[in-house]
Amino acid sequence: MVFKEETIKSEYVFKGKLINVRRDLVTTPSGKSEREIAEHCGGVVMAALKPDGTLIMEHQFRKAIESVLFELPAGKMDPGEQPETAALRELREETGYTAKNIRYLTKSYPSAGFSTEILYSYVCTDLVPGETDLDEDEDIEIADYPLDTLYNMVMSGEIQDAKSQVVIMMVKAMVDRGEFDEYLGR
Amino acid sequence: MVFKEETIKSEYVFKGKLINVRRDLVTTPSGKSEREIAEHCGGVVMAALKPDGTLIMEHQFRKAIESVLFELPAGKMDPGEQPETAALRELREETGYTAKNIRYLTKSYPSAGFSTEILYSYVCTDLVPGETDLDEDEDIEIADYPLDTLYNMVMSGEIQDAKSQVVIMMVKAMVDRGEFDEYLGR
Repeated sequence: MVFKEETIKSEYVFKGKLINVRRDLVTTPSGKSEREIAEHCGGVVMAALKPDGTLIMEHQFRKAIESVLFELPAGKMDPGEQPETAALRELREETGYTAKNIRYLTKSYPSAGFSTEILYSYVCTDLVPGETDLDEDEDIEIADYPLDTLYNMVMSGEIQDAKSQVVIMMVKAMVDRGEFDEYLGR
Repeated sequence: MVFKEETIKSEYVFKGKLINVRRDLVTTPSGKSEREIAEHCGGVVMAALKPDGTLIMEHQFRKAIESVLFELPAGKMDPGEQPETAALRELREETGYTAKNIRYLTKSYPSAGFSTEILYSYVCTDLVPGETDLDEDEDIEIADYPLDTLYNMVMSGEIQDAKSQVVIMMVKAMVDRGEFDEYLGR
């Protein structure tokens, strides 16, 4: 199997605010091939767990899919920003909550077939409420949902945002094995 | 909350083989905003479950992230192709196996912030071995891994492909609640 496709030639075909797109000519076992790649700055996704066993969820219209998506709080990393710093900042901006504890879960490549995007996920606990600070073009509705309800909504197909599917199932497994028993008063 | 951003103007800034990219000027609560959108044909991901409790996994170099990714079999839908048809075709092409049974799991939007991509996921069982038929520029290594091992690799962060994280955790939950007991001889 190939462990690396060497770049023969690379050119940018689009430079935007959110993504840049380049076309790479690469070596493959059968000769050469073109790869179209969307460069994305990467992001963070947060499971903000409250002592009552709920997570903060968001409804947000997503133009790319022309519909409202039900998802965990998430956001893009600023240039040079550490993922954990971005997670705490985005949680505060989108939900108003400051987390006194944050725990790294995993990283995910949402669409490695064409996108460089990487997502770092976290569980945030010990939440202190405050004011939201949304970007000018963001319009987000937040509400708390019981983790068990959300897990069932993943399994039944009602939650369709991939990052939320991953993180809700991971947090459910951690809660079930007792990792948050003290925090949840169990 | 906004339930729809109306398109004021839309222009293609790149048309490629795998993705097209457009820039939409849209209405937002604060006025107008630009959305950069990568149009993708969508795809399928398959958990091919064997009676011994293993899933077929793949190692594949992904240029976008410049590394080999450990993932479930997956592929793009051909124009006009039904997702289930694509799932059976891609499984056969990438692994050689024909599935006599296929069961729909869920759909996922991997990156709804900028990409139209949608992924349909399936569990495939009653697998009949055969010949692979890879695309010219594909180079994939396949191997069977116990579902429990894969689940632990998701939880520990060793599996980082988002679609594989979702589907492995869903199939593990279904197996644990006994949905494949007869097939697995349990």
